[in-house]
Formats: sequence, C-alpha cells, structure tokens
Amino acid sequence: MKAWQDKIRSVVPYTPGEQPNRPNMIKLNTNENPYPPAPGVRDVLDHFDEDRLRLYPDPTAGTLVGALADYYHVGKDQVFTGVGSDDVLAIAFMTFFNSDKPIFFPDITYSFYPVWADLFKVPYETKPLKEDFSICPQDYYPANGGVIFPNPNAPTSHYEDLSVIREILDHNQDVIVIVDEAYIDFAGESALSLLDDYENLLIVQTFSKSRSMAGMRIGYAIGHPELIKAMNDVKYSFNSYTMSQTALALGVEAVRDDVYFKACTAKIRATREKAKQAFTDLGFTYPEPGANFIFVTHPDYPAKELFAALREKDIYVRYFDKPRINNYLRVTIGTDEQMEALFAFLKEYMNR
Amino acid sequence: MKAWQDKIRSVVPYTPGEQPNRPNMIKLNTNENPYPPAPGVRDVLDHFDEDRLRLYPDPTAGTLVGALADYYHVGKDQVFTGVGSDDVLAIAFMTFFNSDKPIFFPDITYSFYPVWADLFKVPYETKPLKEDFSICPQDYYPANGGVIFPNPNAPTSHYEDLSVIREILDHNQDVIVIVDEAYIDFAGESALSLLDDYENLLIVQTFSKSRSMAGMRIGYAIGHPELIKAMNDVKYSFNSYTMSQTALALGVEAVRDDVYFKACTAKIRATREKAKQAFTDLGFTYPEPGANFIFVTHPDYPAKELFAALREKDIYVRYFDKPRINNYLRVTIGTDEQMEALFAFLKEYMNR
Repeated sequence: MKAWQDKIRSVVPYTPGEQPNRPNMIKLNTNENPYPPAPGVRDVLDHFDEDRLRLYPDPTAGTLVGALADYYHVGKDQVFTGVGSDDVLAIAFMTFFNSDKPIFFPDITYSFYPVWADLFKVPYETKPLKEDFSICPQDYYPANGGVIFPNPNAPTSHYEDLSVIREILDHNQDVIVIVDEAYIDFAGESALSLLDDYENLLIVQTFSKSRSMAGMRIGYAIGHPELIKAMNDVKYSFNSYTMSQTALALGVEAVRDDVYFKACTAKIRATREKAKQAFTDLGFTYPEPGANFIFVTHPDYPAKELFAALREKDIYVRYFDKPRINNYLRVTIGTDEQMEALFAFLKEYMNR
Repeated sequence: MKAWQDKIRSVVPYTPGEQPNRPNMIKLNTNENPYPPAPGVRDVLDHFDEDRLRLYPDPTAGTLVGALADYYHVGKDQVFTGVGSDDVLAIAFMTFFNSDKPIFFPDITYSFYPVWADLFKVPYETKPLKEDFSICPQDYYPANGGVIFPNPNAPTSHYEDLSVIREILDHNQDVIVIVDEAYIDFAGESALSLLDDYENLLIVQTFSKSRSMAGMRIGYAIGHPELIKAMNDVKYSFNSYTMSQTALALGVEAVRDDVYFKACTAKIRATREKAKQAFTDLGFTYPEPGANFIFVTHPDYPAKELFAALREKDIYVRYFDKPRINNYLRVTIGTDEQMEALFAFLKEYMNR
C-alpha cells in the first residue's frame, strides 16, 4: 500500500440501481413516470436563451421557489429546493439531526436514511413496522434526536393516514420530524395541511415521480421559515449554486401545468387499480398501494425467481434481498400496455 | 427558545455573491465568460428529447466522462464529474482529507477551502503567499494531511509554473495533492501533463469559466483511476444521481467544439492584454494575470472607494474586505466593449 492511500475515506461501495435502456425493454424498476413531463417543457427548451448559460444561476432559485410557494399556498420563505430529494434530504439530515440521541426511522424504509446517518455521524435506531407494514406510532414516543419516515413508504407503498402523523408529531415536539413524501401525489392527503399546527414538521417532495422529471434532479422541502432558513444557511455555507438554469426553467413549467399533472397522476392511479386486480387474480398479495408502485408477494412463487424470470424477458422490476421483504417484488406502475405485457408473461409463466 | 431549535446545526450564514441582472449593467464581478456557450448548444436544446426527462440520468455520467476522457487523452476511469467544481472539490475534501495532520493551503485562496475543511472537520493550516502572491514551495515540505491550491490562484490571478507544482508534489508523496485549475484555460500549461509521474495528484476543472456554462453547474476531476474510484464510491454512497440529463447533453456538446473553445479563450486573453495596458496607463498595478480576471490595486485610490464608485454606475467588480487584499479589486475580463466602458469611467473618475 502506498502512503497516500491511507488518507482515502473508506466507504461501503454502493452500486447505483440498474438504468438499462434498451428498445422494447419494460422498465418497471425505478418508479419513474411512464409519461413525459408537461407539454410546455418542450416549449421552454425551444425558447431557452442559451446565452444565459454563461451566467451563474440564481442561488435562491427564486423563480422555482416562487412557483412552488404559489402552488402550495405557502410563503416563499417556506420552500427549499435542491438537486433531487436525495440532496434535500441529505441537507436536512445535516441541518436537523444534531443530537446525541438517536434518530428514529422504520426498519423497512428508503435505503439512504442509514447511509446519510452514517455519513454525518448521526446515531439512529430503526423501529420495526407492523406485520402489515404500517407504522406503530408508540414506537416513536421515546426521547430521540429526530424522526424521519417516507409516506407513502418506500418500498412497501403503504400510506399512513394523517392521524398517525399527528400522533407522532404530538409526541415529538422537541425534535424535527421529516415526512418524506416522494410518492404523495399518488396517495391520499399530504401532511402539508399539518404545517400550521406543527412548526417542527418538514415535508420533502420531488419532481422525479409525479412530475416526470427524474432526469432533471429537482427536489424540495416545505416547512416553517425557520427550518427553511437553517437549511439554506447550511447549503449556502458549502455550495451556493446547485440548481442549474435549465432545472429552474423546466421545473417552473412543470409546476405551472396543473391540468396535465392531475391528468397524469390520475392515469397512473387508474392503471394501478387494474394492476391490483390482475395481481390478485394471479394469487399475489400486497399492502394497499399508495404510490406509483405495488409491493407484491406470492405464496407459491419465490420473488427472487420471478425477478430473474422477468428479467430474462427484459421486464425489469426491483427485488430487495433484505430481511422481511426478500419475498417481495416492487413493481412500478407503467403504462397500461406495459402492465399488460407484464401480466401476459406472468400468466404464461404461472400457467394460469 | 423552543426545544427543537437546539437540534439545528449552527453555521456562519454565508451570503452568496450578488447576481444582479439589470439591462445595461456591466457585470465583471463573478468571473463569468462574456461570450455564449458553443453554438452547438442551441442545437442540442432544439433536439433534446423531453421524454427522456422522465428517466433517471446515467449515474456514471458516461457520455460526459467519455467526452472529457477523449478530449484530455486520459482513461474514462480517470474522470469524475459533479455539479460544478464546488461539488467536485467538496467530495474531494471528504474523500481525501482524512488525516489527523492539517491540510495546507495558501492564506490567499479560494474562499470555500476553509469552509469545506470546517464542514468535514478537516484540520488545516494556511501558508502565506509571498509579497508578489506566488507560492513558497518550501512551506509545503512539512508533514501534512493533504495539499490544495488553485492555479491560477483565485483571487490574485497569479499562475505558478509546473516546476513549482512538481516541487510540491516531490515533497508530498504521502498525501493527495489537489490542483484546482478552474481558470487554467486562460493561463499556461495544465498540471495534467504531470499525471503520469504522480499518482497522488488530482486536478479539478470546471465548465463555468472557459466553457461559458456557469449556469449548467458542471465540474470535473482528473486523476489516477484509484482516486477517481474513491471519489465515485463516496459520491454514490450518498447521492447517485446528481448530473441532470440536460447537463450531460449540453456538457458533451461544449467539449466537442474545440474550435469555438479555443477562439473564445483566445479572445478573452486578447482583451486581457488590452486591459493590462489600460490599467497600467491609469497607474494601477497587478500580479501578472493568468485567469479571466485581473487583480488590481492603485497607490492613490483606495479599492473600497473605487468599488463603490463603479457600483454607482452599475459596473460590478469584486472587492474582498480581507487582510492583505483589501486594497485590491478583482475585475473579470468582459467583452472589449465592457472593458472600454469600465476604463472610460475610471479615466473620468480619476481625471486622467
């Protein structure tokens, strides 16, 4: 070993999820939206003044923050934006989880929570979800350094009613509670309606799913102005200019077109309803899905084998080789045609 | 104070540099390129398939990494990309500066080095530049946890010959040495030619200056495959998808058009030569500029007053109220017309 090598930070190398891109493949593995972004996005690209690219973007992301504030009827000082919700969540971890007590999150959850906790040296404890994958609010009563959970949950797709979130907030008035609503637009009511009652609530959302913009890397947080200011202080302190000119311009357009947004999410919900029935007909079970994916298991067909068989046919779904969920498949809701191809194969494979 | 407030990380709030944008203003304060990006960028915007935005970008940034590897005649495994060189540098700090010994950098330097050192709890010592703002290589001989410096320096614009860099590397074989070449395309030879001789050398560059793309947020590092792999491991471990689809597509185009790139940087160098003469004629002195800016001082006119007077006329330059440099102005090289307007005002103001 050379001497300089021992200065290198050792991390568990993480392999990003497969992003294959072959014609005719059916890509139901990363919860992307099967439909393109709002049609106005084409227009924004066509009229984007390329000369602007020579200038630094507005570090406050003012136009996008304004569009989001208008859309959600909150103040501009209540909105933070970042390079995808991963960036927003990482900054939130840095900003809010600074206690000697462990933060709490579910045992089955978004895989990056323990990663950021390790990275920023935040102690944590996981709280087991119930058998049906719902949260047991009492688990979050003990003293802690902060709480975070996804709602709907990833990867189970289970959606918790706001009453559960209220109960967790009522017992956690001394810490910041983060609700990661990456998939909320496919589920029930957002916790945004709780902001007036809870100053210590931060809600994180993304353009990657419901707004068909995973490729643009746009996420945001909404909360009390003091929380947003603290996040901006941390962000500005180490990288002021993160949102590109194109992300700002295209993001604003995606927020502006609410008609398209509502139609698109409604279409995916409708396809999800049909998919539920088709999975049931084939003998699968699943927690009631609240997201743009469904988390299925079958009593007779091991998930790992189904995963491999689907992949052979260029149908990509997601399999997690982790405790409690290693007999499940996470299947993104694609177009009706994609889902029909999936079910046609499954029927054949299962001889139904 | 509410109990949750004490969980918030306290940072020294940083106010990002002014990014005013008024018609007729002359913006020479943030070292942006006065010319638009390569003309092919327009074409890429026109033909960009907006449907792709619904998909996650390639986490390896393969197309952009490939374009940079081809351009610089290095392996694809020698190139790392990030959201501006600030992102690249921050990840480099995390990845390589993990020693109990302090890292070394100049006392007059890019203002974010001490910020990242504090953020990642990296001890550091600054080494005073000589009176003429050049590096004293002997300062970097003692044992340390790593070395970083900008070449050309920001904000002095002074360029160090590769012999100086070689000397520093020869005395620092046990740590990673980072040369921050944000402005190298306006100066002399890049330290890229030293990569074959020094495995522990990392070079960081950016699209923000010479490639007219501050608004797209693209930076990169080039070094030994082992260094690049370590940076990717760290990056993937906390945020895999940072380079947007548009950044990748537009970035590739900017690298492809070498004729435009060379013409654009040559034009700025020519304007810089004229600006040097004009500053000299007005009695200013400056270190020989190697970047797209010039760092000027005047024996009779305090920099702070000149800064204010220029600003009154909507001519923005940069003033740093810091020890040793608080009688200097950092003036970005704009177009010939912008520089003529600057000098016309200065002549009038100074009654010359």
